[in-house]
Amino acid sequence: MSRYSVGVDFGSESGRAVVVDVADGRQLGSAVYAYRHGVIDARLPLPGRDVALPPDWALQDPDDYLRVLQTAVPEALAAAGADPADVIGLGIDFTACTMLPTRADGTPLCLLPELRAEPHAWVKLWKHHAAQPEADRINEAARRLGEAWLPRYGGKISSEWFFSKALQILDEAPDVYARADRLIEAADWVVWRLTGVETRNPTTAGYKAIWSKRDGFPSPAYFAALDPRFGDVVDAKMSRAIARTGDRAGGLTAEAASWTGLREGTAVAVANVDAHVAVPAATVVEPGRMVAIMGTSTCHMVLAAGEHLVPGICGYVEDGILPGYFGYEAGQSCVGDHFAWFVENAVPGRYHAAARELGVDIHELLQEEAARLRPGESGLLALDWWNGNRSVLVDAELGGLLVGATLATTAPEVYRALVEATAFGTRVIIEALEANGVPVTEVVAAGGLAQRSPFIMQVYADVTGKPQRIPVSDQVPALGAAMFGAVAAGAAAGGHATIADAAAAMARLSDVRYDPDPATRDAYDTLYREYVRLHDYFGRGGNDVMKTLRGLRSRAKAGVA
Amino acid sequence: MSRYSVGVDFGSESGRAVVVDVADGRQLGSAVYAYRHGVIDARLPLPGRDVALPPDWALQDPDDYLRVLQTAVPEALAAAGADPADVIGLGIDFTACTMLPTRADGTPLCLLPELRAEPHAWVKLWKHHAAQPEADRINEAARRLGEAWLPRYGGKISSEWFFSKALQILDEAPDVYARADRLIEAADWVVWRLTGVETRNPTTAGYKAIWSKRDGFPSPAYFAALDPRFGDVVDAKMSRAIARTGDRAGGLTAEAASWTGLREGTAVAVANVDAHVAVPAATVVEPGRMVAIMGTSTCHMVLAAGEHLVPGICGYVEDGILPGYFGYEAGQSCVGDHFAWFVENAVPGRYHAAARELGVDIHELLQEEAARLRPGESGLLALDWWNGNRSVLVDAELGGLLVGATLATTAPEVYRALVEATAFGTRVIIEALEANGVPVTEVVAAGGLAQRSPFIMQVYADVTGKPQRIPVSDQVPALGAAMFGAVAAGAAAGGHATIADAAAAMARLSDVRYDPDPATRDAYDTLYREYVRLHDYFGRGGNDVMKTLRGLRSRAKAGVA
Repeated sequence: MSRYSVGVDFGSESGRAVVVDVADGRQLGSAVYAYRHGVIDARLPLPGRDVALPPDWALQDPDDYLRVLQTAVPEALAAAGADPADVIGLGIDFTACTMLPTRADGTPLCLLPELRAEPHAWVKLWKHHAAQPEADRINEAARRLGEAWLPRYGGKISSEWFFSKALQILDEAPDVYARADRLIEAADWVVWRLTGVETRNPTTAGYKAIWSKRDGFPSPAYFAALDPRFGDVVDAKMSRAIARTGDRAGGLTAEAASWTGLREGTAVAVANVDAHVAVPAATVVEPGRMVAIMGTSTCHMVLAAGEHLVPGICGYVEDGILPGYFGYEAGQSCVGDHFAWFVENAVPGRYHAAARELGVDIHELLQEEAARLRPGESGLLALDWWNGNRSVLVDAELGGLLVGATLATTAPEVYRALVEATAFGTRVIIEALEANGVPVTEVVAAGGLAQRSPFIMQVYADVTGKPQRIPVSDQVPALGAAMFGAVAAGAAAGGHATIADAAAAMARLSDVRYDPDPATRDAYDTLYREYVRLHDYFGRGGNDVMKTLRGLRSRAKAGVA
Repeated sequence: MSRYSVGVDFGSESGRAVVVDVADGRQLGSAVYAYRHGVIDARLPLPGRDVALPPDWALQDPDDYLRVLQTAVPEALAAAGADPADVIGLGIDFTACTMLPTRADGTPLCLLPELRAEPHAWVKLWKHHAAQPEADRINEAARRLGEAWLPRYGGKISSEWFFSKALQILDEAPDVYARADRLIEAADWVVWRLTGVETRNPTTAGYKAIWSKRDGFPSPAYFAALDPRFGDVVDAKMSRAIARTGDRAGGLTAEAASWTGLREGTAVAVANVDAHVAVPAATVVEPGRMVAIMGTSTCHMVLAAGEHLVPGICGYVEDGILPGYFGYEAGQSCVGDHFAWFVENAVPGRYHAAARELGVDIHELLQEEAARLRPGESGLLALDWWNGNRSVLVDAELGGLLVGATLATTAPEVYRALVEATAFGTRVIIEALEANGVPVTEVVAAGGLAQRSPFIMQVYADVTGKPQRIPVSDQVPALGAAMFGAVAAGAAAGGHATIADAAAAMARLSDVRYDPDPATRDAYDTLYREYVRLHDYFGRGGNDVMKTLRGLRSRAKAGVA
């Protein structure tokens, strides 16, 4: 008899539910619900009221998450033709840090009529970047006070993180802060809605909220140094009880069962993060193989048995990805976004016309032309910093660079240089990990870019010198969430005892693999040396022209002569 | 009674004749003849025979020059309604160094049936770049032997110069070299055809053939060091008799009179170079005001009373532009070409569509959008080296650079950054001249870009801090040639005694002028400091990545892995 698990992947614009067979990971049905209010970055979605948001804000409506449960899950079940009696577990993954303030019973503050028009009462999406002043204060105080946790996060935390966002609420809307009984990740809030029990996951706590299994959260004294009212933030608004990855958070409530069409009591897994849940879904349950989720940006994850300080990575968390390992995370902030910007802003119409004529995507056309070039043939080299640099420089103020253009330079040549630049950026991350004791033997690349572009994957193999593997599933986060659902159900219920067991049964790599071409080695080693030299010159203080330019731009835009 | 002078401007693709009034410079008629064979860079124009040319070759057909005299001059006279009896003089200007081998009577070797299929028998156009090995040998030997002339040319001569081309003939076609009674600038060859007398002009001799009024040519010993057969090149194939700028070379022969429709004996001026003849036509007959001829590339000329070594300029020649002054020349190899490349290769179709819809040129559209930005607002900075750097680095191997791009960067922002980069390049040249004793008080900018683009001229004024003036004539080289024709005729014939007199009467500045906007000063000073820092880092050996990239490109194109 078949047993199924449901995975729900909450993205930035929509939520996707999949129904998979726990025996082999086969996807039997899926459905997507596009959030009614999407990313709220201009004005609150309030009929008849106009509440504009400042720059860099990004909010969401928590009701959109419930609509995913009410719409996409039943649709996926129907598509799969699965009997709810055969569904043994449910797991979810989420963007992070995406957080909201609630009452003690879990009611989002933004649903209270008197707080509906208060932006700080809504969900702050991961890419809400308006808490930079708070992040700066958090980092400055951590350095000043010699906080031991700072090196675990590469020496700097970002405006996207939990305490930056929480402190911004306190700074700008102290009444909202005061009324918030809980400050909670949206991932955990959804699990709370599903199970009726507030359960905090260790992944967002570890990667986004400065928590570790050994040391817990930063001390009240540290938080008080940021603001006396912030000293008790953990005890008053959060929880020191952090669940374990792979555990069962609880069973579906009757209400949640009615939303989803699943049976009451169905096992629900502890929540997880989209990138992290993808690791076992990409077959990785041991040290050495890196998982890269390649989309608009890229997230890199790798496991290691021990604890290593790696300057410039996003962070590492014990048991943060899989129990028993330290999970290291790094990132590149401009990958698919980079190519999308280029195609939109720097490719002449004749290429678009040719793509239309051939009936192919413009990226496909450019990649085909770029693929005909040998390494070095473009004569170009770029620094992939159009959106700053996440790892290993952790500097959002850096800008893009292109060098070597001539009057014969063509759009496919620039496209190739941009692809190569992102691959060099990945190689920098891999070398930083390896130099600090975290070996990387090969890369399992998931996400749209990895699935769609053999050209890009071959460049990555050649540049990094690491084989690139591709998972069979094109929905690895949702599959990963379903795998955790099967583990939450447990082996006795027909699921799996551990996530490693689930991975062995349910995750597969495609036969497609990209191995480094030794013939490209010399040229790419030469180009990489030049990349690193420019990287260090412009990224480590040799020449701060990128920051000077950003400062001039800000002044000019502000109308300062 | 009106008196007229004819100016003939021999360009790369065509020749233009103008008829002007010697009293006020008013242009009464003009006509253009497009060379039948244009720039010959792929195969010789021989019916039934296929003679392919190697890369970097650029030849011309000397008969095309005679067709300009036979076609454009009579047409211009007809358009002007001028009586040939009232035409007192004729002057010509030419690209340089454009040179050819001839027999003793002036017959081009390429017209001899037995040499017709020999590429080295044809005219080598200024942009024939295949003599780089010879230029390298010339520079190397000059440094080794401590030749006193080398510093006058900024320390390096180029593959475009006379002796590079002459030595290439000897190297590759010694029989053509042996049969050449004369090696001569095309400018001087045309004057020879017009007057029947071989007359060598001092401008090409000084700027392109290492001649000076005080020291003459390099010594036979030096030439012999390049190749023993080359020791007597000056005495055997050229002439040590160099005429003076502004002198009469002779009178029109009966044959040339029949070609042109002018009267036999009409005064013909000593030949001159297009950029240099433009100086007095731009009203400049004294030190201090720089003339910039802005087209695909830019040529800068400025006069000074004394002799100053200015590192990195193209050269200086006593009496080379105007008698009584040292004429300094510098250049930027990528100006209009830069913007043309950008529009063709990096501007999305929607801008082209918008320009078509508005009925404006794409450059006009982009300039209008770019003009709305404040200095610094693009957040971008470029090095204008898409075609290498002529002054002050004299390095064709350098490449372009763009820094500061973000995911919000637009095509008009990049366009503005490229315009600004060429302006920063001009400021580097001006500062090099001024730092070495050659002051520049303002710039008279001629050529298509200066005439057509108020936006570009305002950026140049703001960046350089120098007012930019524009001549009334949009054909300054042809006007300048006609002015020299009027001087060759002399005051007694109704012309002018000196080129200064001719300039006072015939050259005019437009009322349009561009003055530096003090409000832009701080931002541009900051950007210029950053430009110079990048310029010196990438251009003076701090980081040779551009050369490494060029080397990789050459190897890749050659199929070397």
